[in-house]
Amino acid sequence: MKHREEALALDRADPLAPLRDQFALAPDTIYLDGNSLGVPPKAAAARAQQVIGAEWGEGLIRSWNAAGWFALPRRLGNKLAPLIGAAEDEVVVTDTISINLFKVLSAALRLQDARDPGRRVIVSERSNFPSDLYIAQGLIEQLDRGYELRLVDDPAELPEAIGSDTAVAMITHVNYRTGYMHDMAALTQLIHQSGALALWDLAHSAGAVPVDLNGVAADYAVGCTYKYLNGGPGSPAFVWVPKRHQDAFSQPLSGWWGHRAPFQMDPVYQPGPGIGRYLCGTQPMVSMALVECGLDVFLQTGMHEIRRKSLALTDLFIDLVESRCAGHALHLVTPRAHTQRGSHVSFAHPHGYEVMQALIARNVIGDYREPHVLRFGFTPLYLRYVDVWDAVETLRDVLESESWRAPEFAARGAVT
Amino acid sequence: MKHREEALALDRADPLAPLRDQFALAPDTIYLDGNSLGVPPKAAAARAQQVIGAEWGEGLIRSWNAAGWFALPRRLGNKLAPLIGAAEDEVVVTDTISINLFKVLSAALRLQDARDPGRRVIVSERSNFPSDLYIAQGLIEQLDRGYELRLVDDPAELPEAIGSDTAVAMITHVNYRTGYMHDMAALTQLIHQSGALALWDLAHSAGAVPVDLNGVAADYAVGCTYKYLNGGPGSPAFVWVPKRHQDAFSQPLSGWWGHRAPFQMDPVYQPGPGIGRYLCGTQPMVSMALVECGLDVFLQTGMHEIRRKSLALTDLFIDLVESRCAGHALHLVTPRAHTQRGSHVSFAHPHGYEVMQALIARNVIGDYREPHVLRFGFTPLYLRYVDVWDAVETLRDVLESESWRAPEFAARGAVT
Repeated sequence: MKHREEALALDRADPLAPLRDQFALAPDTIYLDGNSLGVPPKAAAARAQQVIGAEWGEGLIRSWNAAGWFALPRRLGNKLAPLIGAAEDEVVVTDTISINLFKVLSAALRLQDARDPGRRVIVSERSNFPSDLYIAQGLIEQLDRGYELRLVDDPAELPEAIGSDTAVAMITHVNYRTGYMHDMAALTQLIHQSGALALWDLAHSAGAVPVDLNGVAADYAVGCTYKYLNGGPGSPAFVWVPKRHQDAFSQPLSGWWGHRAPFQMDPVYQPGPGIGRYLCGTQPMVSMALVECGLDVFLQTGMHEIRRKSLALTDLFIDLVESRCAGHALHLVTPRAHTQRGSHVSFAHPHGYEVMQALIARNVIGDYREPHVLRFGFTPLYLRYVDVWDAVETLRDVLESESWRAPEFAARGAVT
Repeated sequence: MKHREEALALDRADPLAPLRDQFALAPDTIYLDGNSLGVPPKAAAARAQQVIGAEWGEGLIRSWNAAGWFALPRRLGNKLAPLIGAAEDEVVVTDTISINLFKVLSAALRLQDARDPGRRVIVSERSNFPSDLYIAQGLIEQLDRGYELRLVDDPAELPEAIGSDTAVAMITHVNYRTGYMHDMAALTQLIHQSGALALWDLAHSAGAVPVDLNGVAADYAVGCTYKYLNGGPGSPAFVWVPKRHQDAFSQPLSGWWGHRAPFQMDPVYQPGPGIGRYLCGTQPMVSMALVECGLDVFLQTGMHEIRRKSLALTDLFIDLVESRCAGHALHLVTPRAHTQRGSHVSFAHPHGYEVMQALIARNVIGDYREPHVLRFGFTPLYLRYVDVWDAVETLRDVLESESWRAPEFAARGAVT
């Protein structure tokens, strides 16, 4: 692409363009960080008022039933399910990714212990999102039964790392830093061939790329609603367990919301049937209700339409950065192959931190990840092709003018 | 009390009366269920708009720092601390009670294992809130190291049940059903004399009765912000760990928010110093921000003032029910002694469920707990003495007219 007008023409032809109007977008801002925190759906403000005014204020305690609060984790789970290839009653929206990971990792180890005892290795990647590794470490230390976390440095090492000693492979589908996307079908198959279970983290996948959990016969999954799903800052996460695993065991965070009859006040835990046993305690209803505003936008389109535009946006961004910012020491970190790319693009730069600060000061908002990485997220529901053009022009100007060298952008010290 | 006018006179003399104006109270409703879900502070609606509009919508990802989101669990913890006798940097607002209980119960067992191995009993009460028992059961089953949950049926059995085999006593300060309140100082001392650790659940205590965790030298505590603290439906819970225990161990839910440097993306978990290591994953910011609106009301008074009015309200309620509803098979479940009473009052009635439904239909909202128990909560920040009078008059009318026998109140079948 050579001219801004070409980007405008793409926007005019974009079938997703009308959805942009459903988001409350900050004026004069190009927001390329929806992979970290999505923007508010316009419906969110009114929904919050409804929850606080009518449901909490007037309905009061009755709203747990009358306003459907108690059922909301399951209802939202069913609404989210089609985006990730899950079936009805296989997903609940609840707690945080880390907490949900603890639940399913515990369940996975227990399942393996019952059907093939002695497998003591959890395989993952050193470049996985750290919290996932921390949860595995916490569980391993707590269990104190000789479990081991085996980390590979490159996806290519996974086939060798996953073997007859492996209980579970805990893989994040799209890498938070590089944007690298695994082949979920092929890797799940490989994991199963070794007799291991496949646990997927969909933090950077749900709402960003097509996912077919049942289609690939995955075993467990967790994910996030505040990134591409636009649920709001820290909105509750989700957990998926397919029907074939749901009733095998109860997970150790066995709070009353997972009990088969929570209001009978039974002193002995008896897990409810199905996915409900992955619930634990009372959920934050104002934050949770807003998740629905984000999901409702997805009902108006489909993941394949979103994926088509996502690839067009990231292709265009890579092309423009490499053509218009050539010679500025930017190095593409994200794979070029469509099959290996999520919905964000990372470029390394020796002064990545300062360059990102200078961009943010110009209202082009991406983020920075150690080491050296400028990260740009592309969310097809509200981003335009012209935003990509304008963002790259701003980047070019920051680099050519060297405005990133201004002292205010170096607060944390230069990365050398 | 014989006349409604006497109640009105008490309201005119009540130093807490002006605080009622800070709550968005449903018209024509007498709300006696603030022990289950507090009412909205008026500030909550505007605060939600600020979080959604300015912080999320305009600040976007920058608000994690600029709007103080990341620091909020600790800042709110410090604001809550004085209500429970905690010091600065000993409380965080995060996750749910059940999740926080799992953290501190895990930490307590680990601490005992290090200093006095072999203690394998967790003592609690069969009448404890079930989720607490479920979490203990889940942890015991997961650890699979011979731990045992020993439940007593009466508080008087606790001294005998807590012994040299006891790792931790997990006690709820105020019983959710009966309103019975333990002597926290005496029981903590007894627990310590046996070499056990004292873990307190403050769900029905925080904001309801004075608590002095450091004064009694308790070991761990968890509690709730959506009951007497008026944080909103399912608002995040809190966890207290005194400075002397904070750095002993990290808890097993070791997510990135508990890491000493979360944004360095270290693949190895290294717990942060202090209470921060009891954090786990990203928190729901809209729900969490509203917790502050509730806490801000408490800054304008003190727990001893609140306790004085709470006892006056519950005394009056007991007196009026027993005098004006005499002969209607109501049996007081809550202790008469002030030292043993929380801030709610329970009466058993053979048709408790139907009577409560009939009351709710008349806009006197309490709740029902199996078996037979009518439960009425008294929150001094927004309840008036005249509300107590009017509630009892409504109860009297429901009982004398036998309006509770109407078929619409018997949906779940009569309790016989």
